[in-house]
This record gives sequence, C-alpha cells and structure tokens, in this order.
Amino acid sequence: MAHNVARLRARLSRFDVTLRPHLKTGKSVDVARAVMASPAGPATVSTLKEAARFAEAGVRDIIYAVGITPDKLGRVLDLRSGGVDLAVVLDTVEQAEAVAAASREAGVRIPALIEIDCDGHRSGILPTDVEKLTAIGQILATDAELRGVLTHAGGSYAARGVAALVACAEEERRAVVDAATILRTADLACPVVSVGSTPTAHYAADLTGVTEVRAGVFVFFDLVMAGIGVCEVDDIALSVMATVIGFQREKGWILTDAGWMAMSRDRGTAKQAVDQGYGVVCDLAGRPYLNLIVADANQEHGIIAVRPGSGGVLPDLAIGDRVRILPNHACSTGA
Amino acid sequence: MAHNVARLRARLSRFDVTLRPHLKTGKSVDVARAVMASPAGPATVSTLKEAARFAEAGVRDIIYAVGITPDKLGRVLDLRSGGVDLAVVLDTVEQAEAVAAASREAGVRIPALIEIDCDGHRSGILPTDVEKLTAIGQILATDAELRGVLTHAGGSYAARGVAALVACAEEERRAVVDAATILRTADLACPVVSVGSTPTAHYAADLTGVTEVRAGVFVFFDLVMAGIGVCEVDDIALSVMATVIGFQREKGWILTDAGWMAMSRDRGTAKQAVDQGYGVVCDLAGRPYLNLIVADANQEHGIIAVRPGSGGVLPDLAIGDRVRILPNHACSTGA
Repeated sequence: MAHNVARLRARLSRFDVTLRPHLKTGKSVDVARAVMASPAGPATVSTLKEAARFAEAGVRDIIYAVGITPDKLGRVLDLRSGGVDLAVVLDTVEQAEAVAAASREAGVRIPALIEIDCDGHRSGILPTDVEKLTAIGQILATDAELRGVLTHAGGSYAARGVAALVACAEEERRAVVDAATILRTADLACPVVSVGSTPTAHYAADLTGVTEVRAGVFVFFDLVMAGIGVCEVDDIALSVMATVIGFQREKGWILTDAGWMAMSRDRGTAKQAVDQGYGVVCDLAGRPYLNLIVADANQEHGIIAVRPGSGGVLPDLAIGDRVRILPNHACSTGA
Repeated sequence: MAHNVARLRARLSRFDVTLRPHLKTGKSVDVARAVMASPAGPATVSTLKEAARFAEAGVRDIIYAVGITPDKLGRVLDLRSGGVDLAVVLDTVEQAEAVAAASREAGVRIPALIEIDCDGHRSGILPTDVEKLTAIGQILATDAELRGVLTHAGGSYAARGVAALVACAEEERRAVVDAATILRTADLACPVVSVGSTPTAHYAADLTGVTEVRAGVFVFFDLVMAGIGVCEVDDIALSVMATVIGFQREKGWILTDAGWMAMSRDRGTAKQAVDQGYGVVCDLAGRPYLNLIVADANQEHGIIAVRPGSGGVLPDLAIGDRVRILPNHACSTGA
C-alpha cells in the first residue's frame, strides 16, 4: 500500500496539482491518514456518513462527490458549522437553487462544485452547455459559493492500452478546463478545477489548468486495474483471507468460507481480456497460484477451481488452511 | 412481510416439519423474531458473528450452516457453554476428526450435521457415498454428536416452472432421506433431517422423512424469486429508498443516490426471462413503474432508465423526490 501511495504521489509531483484522495475505497481512518497530504485532508467522500466519520477523525477539507439533494443540506450545514469545509456537487439549476436557498436561510455560503460530464459515463453537464453552466454559476455566486468544477472519467475503466488511457485523461482535463473557461468568461470565479480516476491519474500526460486530482483505488489496486494495465497483480494491496472448508475432488473444487459477502459480487474483469472470476487465489505470502481462480461465489461460500484451459492442478491444501484472494474491485471488497 | 411469513407457515403446516428460518437474509433481531417459532428459535445462520449476535438476543437453537473449520471450534464451544445449542455442519472426515478432537478436549459433545449434496450445486457428500457417510457418522457418534443430515437445493434457483420446482424439492428430500437411511442402517442415530431453500419450501409436494425446513428469502422475496414464479412482484417486502439527484434528459436517465452499495451488485435476474437490471422502480406507495428499471449502478449512483423496448416514458420526478427500488436479491441488499 505504501508503495502504491508513493507511486501516485511521485507521478503527480511533476504537475502543479493537489491530491484529494477518495476515501470510499478504504473507508478507514488509518488508510485515510496514509493517503492524505495531512490529517486534515484534503479528501473526497461518497456519502455524508463517510463525511461525518472522517470529520470526527479530524479531516477538515472534504468534497462530498455525489449530487446533492435538498434533504441532505441540513446535515451539510451541521458539518460545516462543526468546522469542516465540506463542499457539495451538483449539475442542475434546481440543485443550485436549493443550495442558494439553504445558504440564505442559514446565513452562510455553502460551497458547491459543478459536475461536468467528460465522457457520457454518468452525471454532469456537457462542457459545451454554456447556458446551463453560467445559469448555475450565477445562482451559486450570488447566494452560495461557486467553488469550481469537477469531473470523473468513469469511462477510463473501459479503456485498454496506454494510448487510450492518455486520451481519456486528456478528455477529462479538457472538459473541466473548458467549463472553467466558460464560467470565468462570464466573470465568475472558478478556483477549483478537479479531475479524478485512478487510470487517468496514472496516465495523464498534461494537467494544465487542473488544480486537484481525486483518485481512490490507487491505494490498494485490484484485478480490474491490473486488467487495464494500471498496475501489476503484485501491486494489489488488499486481499481477503479465506479458510478451506471443504472439497469436491471429482469436480476439481476447493470450497472456502469467503463468498461474495467477503469478495463482493463485482465481476469487473468479466469483460476484460483475462476474466479473473471472483478473484485470484494466492498463498499466505501473497504469491498467486496462477492456475487457480475463484470460479463461483455464494453468500458465504467461495468455490476455487483450476482456471479453464490452464492445465493446472489444485494445490495440496487441507481443511482449515488459509489462502489470500485478490479482489476484482477494491472499493466493493473494502466496503 | 407478515403475509409472506404466514404464507410459508401455512404451506408447511400440512407437513410434519419444523421451520428453522435462515436469519442471514434479514440479519436483524426484529426480523428474526417475526419469522422464528419462538424467541429462542430454532434458527439457521451463515456466520459465527450472526450466531453470537442472535445468541445475545436470546436465540438458543442454532445451526451454523457453513462448513466448520478447526480454528472456529473455540468460538463454537464458547457459544455452547453460554447456553446456546449451536450445531455445526461438515462434509469431510478431517472436519469430523477435528470436531471429535475438540469435543474430547473440552469434555463435551459438539453436535454436527453431515452436509449432503442433492444437486451438485456446491458442497456436501453424495447420498450414494455409503463409505464416507458411515465413516463420518461413526467418528461423530463416538466422540461428538451426530445430530443429523442437511442439504440445500441451490440448484432450485435455476429451475423454471412448477414441475421443475416440485422435482427439485423431491430431489432435495430424497437426497437427505437416503443419507439418513444409510446412517441408520449402520446403527447410527440420525434425528435431524434438514432441507431448505425458498423455492423448494414453497413447492415441495411431499416431505416424508424430513424433520425441518430451512428457508430465508421467503420473508422478503425479491426479483429473482418473482422471476422463478415463487412470488409476485407485489409480494416483495424489502425495498431501497432512493432519492433523485440528477437527470441526463437526452439519454433518458434519472440519476439516484442508490448505487450498488444500497442495491447490491446482484444481477440474479440477468439469465431469467425478464432481466430486471439492478432493480424495479416503484413510487413511494410501492406501485411499480412497469416501464422503468435501474439500468446501471455505480458505488453510490444508480441510473434509472426506460426499460428497453417498453415504449414507456420517464415519470415526472424532481430533484429530491424519492422512489422505492425492489432488489434482485434480498439477502445481499439486506446485508
């Protein structure tokens, strides 16, 4: 884990950007402290529950990076009045009006970032939608605080090869920088220009105009990231300890007590060149059994089998022996 | 929920069997009390953590239905010495020897059930393997306690149609009854003959020789069960409240704050006749929008879209409005 954190820090040190790690991956104060620049942050979270938990642990600079709704603004104001600089994210005029109204009512200015859609992956405003961007920017600047613009290159998880990853990163950068330019042209301040995904953080060739990078899974990595080529299987720093609970020798199965409750149901490598099933099996020292995968998973049962076509054999394990299993998606296994 | 519980109780009342509900679905003491015959049980759990939690709440008759390992026997003995009749499950001679050794050492007899494989779905001994069954039975009867035999018709989740479900239930029944007969022929007592899955519990035509039925998801039901035909969509008693956080109107998307952390990553209906995506969307009163599904899910974002080919339109929802989403798999959403 320390190696992975150092690797991203070294990579970002060539640019003039801040690292604002996404803490949803680890959901742990210890992991958060290992990845943040200081115990006070900055940081990104995906729920207000995470925001409250990390605020208790002393984090003071947080972006809640899921679109805000009116019913959550009370909790946002509570956290802010407790001394946490918590910023929200939005992409509609309705949300901006709700943030402005709550700010007026509370006599404070809630900071908000406008979410930009850089690749059609999920939410956000297109960086060509000048009208909507300036409308939202003006509402925020008048009654709340326009903190900046933010995007997430979710499409990068489907990219294959260095050229495609570099292109995703550039598309991500250009989308927010274009949006910031539109706002500034309308005389609106836009101090923060925020991008973030682990693949693009590792492959960006240029971050001109960007002020901060959010990434989360870089801390542990996982089989999806290894499949994209962002890390090696050896870099994966999160594993599930599974205990052998049985055998079906005629079928070539070893049964363990690590089902999808432990591994997560994520099958993120199913569409990649190498399908890792529900995970790669390693010995206790972390050396992968290259011929084994977790072929199936029930709630509390995992089925380890020889990888199809590998010609391997099952290792000589006894009831009670333990193995380490590398997960497809560190965020879901960590949660 | 009360209706679903009453339905299974009524159905089982025609047979001479006990209902031993699987508490992993609800993982809640309140739900457990609504489904158990008495506050003391009987009950089934899938982890020792669940066993400890329900034991604290007064449950006294529990089967831990995942293959036991030697390292867990200390916790089993602790719970038993606290007054809980906790039984374990196993399917190898090694496990039986470990249970016998721990029993001798502690001066008690740990009860164990032999797991039977009724459909090749996962773990267990074939009911034709006389040698292994009697070997395990003799080890347990000598130094521990042979409580009985147990199976789970996991294959019933892939069955379609009443005839197939009735056949699965009969296959499940015959497997454990045959195994019990083998043990009794070898002069081994086999008081408990335990079957269990929600589809087979609802479709068994005959339970002769069976003493108890374990089922879990019958309490809430879910879209997988509705797809099998075990319940109607209206019977589903567990839903996720999701709040609208944004729109991508050109794409026909409504974005919500309920991603796979809330819904689970379960795509159990993907291979069924009607693919429900990540869930069916209902209004607050629970009436399904038949033309909508949760088309995609990220960790904290859900994407609601018009069901492909339905010709429907998106309902008129605003930011902050709430919808109920029915899950594919109640066990994973409940967890």
